[in-house]
Order: sequence, then structure tokens, then C-alpha cells
Amino acid sequence: MKIDVLSLFPPMFEGVFGESILKKAQEKKAVELNVIDFREFSPHKQKSVDDYPYGGGAGMVLKPEPIFEAIDHVASSSNKKPRIVLMCPQGERYCQAKAEELSKEDHLIFVCGHYEGYDERIREHLVTDEISIGDFVLTGGELGAMVVIDSVVRLLPQVLGNEQSAIKDSFSSGLLEHPHYTRPASYRGMDVPEVLTSGNHAHIDEWRLKESLKRTWQRRPDLLEIYPLTSAQKKWIHEWEKLKDS
Amino acid sequence: MKIDVLSLFPPMFEGVFGESILKKAQEKKAVELNVIDFREFSPHKQKSVDDYPYGGGAGMVLKPEPIFEAIDHVASSSNKKPRIVLMCPQGERYCQAKAEELSKEDHLIFVCGHYEGYDERIREHLVTDEISIGDFVLTGGELGAMVVIDSVVRLLPQVLGNEQSAIKDSFSSGLLEHPHYTRPASYRGMDVPEVLTSGNHAHIDEWRLKESLKRTWQRRPDLLEIYPLTSAQKKWIHEWEKLKDS
Repeated sequence: MKIDVLSLFPPMFEGVFGESILKKAQEKKAVELNVIDFREFSPHKQKSVDDYPYGGGAGMVLKPEPIFEAIDHVASSSNKKPRIVLMCPQGERYCQAKAEELSKEDHLIFVCGHYEGYDERIREHLVTDEISIGDFVLTGGELGAMVVIDSVVRLLPQVLGNEQSAIKDSFSSGLLEHPHYTRPASYRGMDVPEVLTSGNHAHIDEWRLKESLKRTWQRRPDLLEIYPLTSAQKKWIHEWEKLKDS
Repeated sequence: MKIDVLSLFPPMFEGVFGESILKKAQEKKAVELNVIDFREFSPHKQKSVDDYPYGGGAGMVLKPEPIFEAIDHVASSSNKKPRIVLMCPQGERYCQAKAEELSKEDHLIFVCGHYEGYDERIREHLVTDEISIGDFVLTGGELGAMVVIDSVVRLLPQVLGNEQSAIKDSFSSGLLEHPHYTRPASYRGMDVPEVLTSGNHAHIDEWRLKESLKRTWQRRPDLLEIYPLTSAQKKWIHEWEKLKDS
């Protein structure tokens, strides 16, 4: 996979792209990551990339030319039409299904604005996807792009080691994860639940499923709406509900 | 405000903390940002920070001691009890109201795990908040912490310049933003809407409100449920609904 990022702040990406899984994925040639300063594609002498909005108002608007030209440049190396992702608060809410969809592409291009709005022609005629990572205000699209890239690249074949990929991810079972404990068995007066050191694996499995279900019921009841509960599990939940009400 | 981040990958933060608003906020002394490698607080010779889970299973679990000890170290400088935020998929969904809440604190500490689970004693006896930025799987808590930190620091007094803070944020009006346009008026055959160059500000204001409402209706109808619509606005929406159905 090839990923190009258009940003006015390329150094922002250095730390994240140079460590951990993203570093290893590049070393394994599973992904090629490039960051392009789209200011270089400005047709203006002063290399300006923004201008005042038509119709007046506060704030600046990113001009169409530098972004259209930069995309022409990076897309010219693709055989297939790349997916062009605009990071913006009005975009569709990012989720794991979207990560899986994007991980099947050959070439992704991310467009990251910074404070300003985008000229609408970029949105309407250039990009294929608009993504928001959530209902909060960030300084620019860069952090959102890093989040999407990390979640996509870790899904590519051979990126995760066997050990890591064997770990059940929080969303793959449909429930939140059960609590984990490791050594020491006692620390500052806090002890590991006895069942986990009992060696009885049937009991351990039941405890884990029950805790997993309980945490989901407490924190993310929306996930239970689509989870296929057994009658025993429905009974547990019924008991927790009675305890809560009493 | 003081912000300490506990991570096993401190270099990940260099790019993001060294550019743009976060850089300026540190220069203005509005925030002090530190990243601490909690491996240094491991009591073991090999400086190990994780171990196998009690009860068996794949994956490793972050041990309690290095994180408890690192927090003791960074919290000792605080007069008030700091907020200790664990980044994890089971946490409460991050939103702008939480950013505003955190921006009123004196001292925030972020705990970032990486692949592994956290020993439950960290969750139960140490942290004050558990935050998730969304339903997608990331390699570690670092990117989530950067997202939260960026959104919090930009709310601190004097961090944003007048120009930037005057920009209406996407969520502050309760509607998504209207489209923006800037020069050139015509680019590659794509033209700016005539009303924006008309000079008639009453028409421009109406066009913007209508487009803002339309975009919200199309993309985020949930926001309209709590937006106080006028009867004229309800009529617009009724017309769009008729067009859509026909």
C-alpha cells in the first residue's frame, strides 16, 4: 500500500511514522508513507495556500490550486484511481469497518487542513471520502490522518506479529474486554482475583465472559443490542439490573 | 496547565508537540508538556513492564508497579490531585464537552498502553478517567492522548490568536459549517456560487444558513434533534425531504 499525506506541517508526522508498528510496517515494505507539503504546489510567488472567503467572514479558506496540483502529482504514480480522504469535522464518523474497507486499497491520499476551511470545490470535485474521528475540535486534520493511518496499516498482511494479531481486539468479539491481571499477585494491598490463580480453566473462562459482559452492560449497552445473548447471559444481566435498581 | 504523558514510546510525541499550536502554547507558557518513559520506573533488573496474564491467554499485560511508581513521581509536584486519564477502548467516548471539562484542570496525566492490556488494579485504584476516542483499534494509547491534548490545549486562555478563536468551530453553532469559497472565482471550470460575489449580505447570510442547515440535515440529522428550528427552516427541510422522496 502507498499512502501520501498532504499537510502544511510535515514534521508533525515524524515521531508517529518513525516508531512502533508504522516504522516496522515501512521496514517490511508493507506500506510506503510520504508526507507532502502542499505549499510547494502553490502557483503564487509567496507560496500562499489560503485566502479570504468570498462573501466575507472571519477565518481563511484553503485555496483549490495547491491541493488539486499536489493530488495530480501524487496520483500520477497510481495505476488505479486512489482514494482521496479529506479529514474534516463534517465527515462520516470513522469506525473499524471503514478501517477494514480502506485497508483493501492500493493507494490512499489524505488531505489535512489546518484551522481554515477548505474551498468547497476540493470537497465536491476532488475527494472520494470525508472522515471525522469524532465530535471534538482539533487544530488540524493531521492527528486524524495519523489515527486513520495507524488503524489501517495494522490491518495489512504481515504487519502485526503472530503474538499481537492473536490478541483479541476490543471490538472483534462484540463485547468489551474482560479485566486483565499479571504479576505481582499482591501489590500495595491489592490482590488478583482468586479464580485466576486457581488453575481451573472452566471457571476462568466463565469469569472472563461474565466480566466482559458486565463491563459491556455497564459502559456500552448499545453493543449488547446486536450481541447474541444466551439465556444464561440474559439471566446475569437481569440480576445486575435488579442490584442496580435496589 | 501541566500535562505529563506516560508512554513506552516518547519519541512518538516529538513531531506533534514540536509544531503548530502545541509548540506555541508551550512557548507562551500556557502549558508544560512532559513525556515520561514509564519503563524507567520498573523495579526489575531487565526493566520489564509487562508479563503474562494470570489465568492464561494470548497477549501481555502491563504490570502495575511501573505505572503506579511513575504516577507517584509526577503527581508529587502537584498541590491539587491531578486528573489521571487512561486511554483505552473501553473508556467513555471523547467529546468536546469533555475537552472543556479537562481544560479547567491544573494538572493532567495521561497513561498510554501499547498493544497490551492494563493490569486491572491500574484501572480500579489509580486512574480518574478512562477515555476512548472512538470505535476503532489503534496500536496504542499515544495517538488518542495526542488528540485529547490538542483539543484541550487549544481551549486554554491565550493559546489561540484572536483570528483563529474568532472562527466559528464546527460544533459551536449546533450546525455543520456552510461551504467556503475563495479565489480564484473560476478554477478548472468550477465556479464560485454567484450569491457570494453579489455583495448582498442579506442574501449571503441566508444562503450560508440554508447550506449549513442542509449539510446538517444530510450528514448529521442527530444534531437537528436539539437545534431550535424556526418555522421557515422547518419549511426548507420539508422541501428537501419532498425532493429526496420524489
